[in-house]
Parts: sequence; C-alpha cells; structure tokens
Amino acid sequence: MPTLGSDDKRDPVAIKERRRSKRIVRRRAEIIDAAKNIFLAGDYASVTIDDIADTAGISRATIYLYFKSKQEVYTELLFRDLDAMITMLITSFDRNDSVRNNLFRMSISYMNFFRVHPEYFTTLSFFFMPGRKETLPPDAAAKISARLNDGILTIEEAIKLGISRGEARPVDARAATLSLWGQWMGNAYLAVAGRTTIYERTIEQVYADGIDLFLDGLTVRSPG
Amino acid sequence: MPTLGSDDKRDPVAIKERRRSKRIVRRRAEIIDAAKNIFLAGDYASVTIDDIADTAGISRATIYLYFKSKQEVYTELLFRDLDAMITMLITSFDRNDSVRNNLFRMSISYMNFFRVHPEYFTTLSFFFMPGRKETLPPDAAAKISARLNDGILTIEEAIKLGISRGEARPVDARAATLSLWGQWMGNAYLAVAGRTTIYERTIEQVYADGIDLFLDGLTVRSPG
Repeated sequence: MPTLGSDDKRDPVAIKERRRSKRIVRRRAEIIDAAKNIFLAGDYASVTIDDIADTAGISRATIYLYFKSKQEVYTELLFRDLDAMITMLITSFDRNDSVRNNLFRMSISYMNFFRVHPEYFTTLSFFFMPGRKETLPPDAAAKISARLNDGILTIEEAIKLGISRGEARPVDARAATLSLWGQWMGNAYLAVAGRTTIYERTIEQVYADGIDLFLDGLTVRSPG
Repeated sequence: MPTLGSDDKRDPVAIKERRRSKRIVRRRAEIIDAAKNIFLAGDYASVTIDDIADTAGISRATIYLYFKSKQEVYTELLFRDLDAMITMLITSFDRNDSVRNNLFRMSISYMNFFRVHPEYFTTLSFFFMPGRKETLPPDAAAKISARLNDGILTIEEAIKLGISRGEARPVDARAATLSLWGQWMGNAYLAVAGRTTIYERTIEQVYADGIDLFLDGLTVRSPG
C-alpha cells in the first residue's frame, strides 16, 4: 500500500520524505556492515555499541538514532542475509516447471547462500546467539521464523504441486521438506568443517548427488 | 594385544596394575562428567581447571595427574561421546542384511545420539570450540576425525555392498554417504532449533521420511 503522497513525484514534501527514507536505509545498512565485522571477530557478549560506532566511523549517539540496541543491530543483520537467501529460493520456484527442476534449482540457491555466507554455519546463527549459549529474543526469533517459513513453505508447495500433477509420489510433503532442508543445512556444515575436502568431494557433488537421490526417491519413475 | 602379565589373574603385580588402570579410567570419567556441566554452563574461554576441580570435588593438582590441560579435558569429552555414537552406528551394520535395513538402522542410531546428546547440536561441537570462534587443535581434530571416519566409512560400506549386490543403483557411494550424513546432522539441528515442532512433525517422522526417500532413490525398485 503506497504511503500518502508517495505517488506524486513532484511534491517537494514527498521528495524530501523519499530522500530521508533512502538515507535511513543506507545508513542502517552501513551500520549493519560495520557491526557484522565486529560480531565475526569477537564474542557477542563482549561487543559494544561503541565498537560498532568506531568501525562504522560514526558516533554512538548516531547509532542510537537507527537502532535501539546491539541486539537489534544483530537481529537486523541476520534478517537481512536470511531475507536475501529466501528471496533467491522463492525466485527459483516456477510453477510451470517440473518438481525435479524446481527442487534442483532451490538446492543450488541454498548452496550458493552457503558459499557467500559460510559465517552462518560457523559463527552466526539464525537460531542461537553467537557463542550459542543464549537463544534469540522472542520478537527477533518470530521475525526470523516467519521469513524462514516463507522459504520452507515454497519447498513444500513445489513438492505438493509435483504430487498433484502425478510427477511425485504421495509422500508427506511437509516431512519431506524438513528432511530436505536439513540435508542442505547439514551439507553446508560438513563443507565448512572441511569434511567434503577430506573425502575428496566438492560441495557441488554432495548437493547434486543428495538432491538427485532425494528426487529419484520422490518422483514417479518412468517405466523402463 | 594383551599387555604383559594381563592374562595371569593371580599375579599380584598384574592385579595391582589392573586395579590402577581401572581407577584411572574411573577417575578420568568423573572429571570429564564434572567438566561437561561446566562447559555447558559457561563459555569455553572462561572455564578454568579450578572450576572443573571444584565441581568434581577434587584438587586442581589431582586433575593435572589425569589431564594436561582444560583443552585435553574438553577433547576427551567430545571423543568419549562421539565414540559411543560411532560404536552404535557400526554395530547397526549387518553385512547379511539389506542396504535398506542397514541404513534405516543407522539413521535411528544417529537420531538416538541426538536425542541423548542435543548439546552437541547447540553448545558443544566436534568441529569447533564452544563459542565457535576457534577450531580444535590439530591433534584433537585428527583424533575426532579418525573416529568420525569409522562411522562414515561404515555408511559408505553399506551403500557399496548394496550396489555390489544389485540392491542399490550404481551411485557415487561416497557423495551419497556425505549427503546422508549431512541430512542426519541437519535434521538434528532443525529439531533442536524447534523447527520440527513448529511444523507439527516429530523428529522420528522427519528421520523416517528422509531416509525412506533417500532409500527409494538409492535402491533398485522392484517392477510393479
């Protein structure tokens, strides 16, 4: 839903408001980028707003114009990166394509997220605080959960569509989705822990063979 | 290979040596149990040998009779729990049984490890230090790796045996193994993060459906 006056490109108040909005988005992004370096370098507990301000090259007071707390900076960082991944995953889904092609593309999307963001499998976490002794506060956890849910429901929809068209066997689409999502997550953990290298397989091979076996199990095989 | 004199049940020197051995094993286990509570409660970096000694109800000097360092206590703890899991996994493998039954039993073994030891999916880690900023020292990592390898090779062997008997299709057994291991690990992470509950599936359903789909993809389907 457009905000008041946002359609009027020549209204000076609207122009000013749009510029202000853009500035806020840009400044928040700068703070999040600076904070990410700090969160990756130290323990969550020991990071202060002053550390983030120093790295971002702005004052502590300025940070508080954009974020309520260190906690809010951290959860916005998680949300931003997760959002990019879920968007890629959802974009991979094409209702006019086969269940096999859809799930294969989603698998590659997930793998690419891991390749760009291995830190989510070593240091940061969508479920726990860094250092993993605390969980996320309820509101942050709910926001992360809702966006994760968009991705998980898209996988489930792809499987259900495959079942409804007779391409896939009538499995429990939800349990299959969770199992597949777990496979992707676990494969990323194995890769980041160096297991794929030890076993002389590339991350691409493990994802490709994993999704192939899953799809061969899921889909109705053509006779012969 | 038996040690010198260990076969002689009445040799007083051997008896004394056996008792000493048992005492060492028991005492080390007591220290590891105490340390585990400490490692789970705090950050690895902040845990001291004194904390462990206090919890175990022994002196700091006594701990140093059994362990060189906090690091050694930690890696022995990891190794002990991992060893129990790998032993269960290997014990699940029966060369005279089908690839389907073997992999299904192994899947249940892994799931049961998670159920008894969710802390390895939240707080401790076979790959990283708790808090996950540091990796394990090379000798500890090598010991953990070697035992993990015993488990991974057993899965691979079960798949290869299935292929050689014509029960399984001629896939890359190693990539399939890594993908399956990743699936089990990822499913445990999902469960510990509460995802299985959110999606109204039990951990048993997710493991069972995951292994079923994988096995349906892996195995040669009987016609009809």
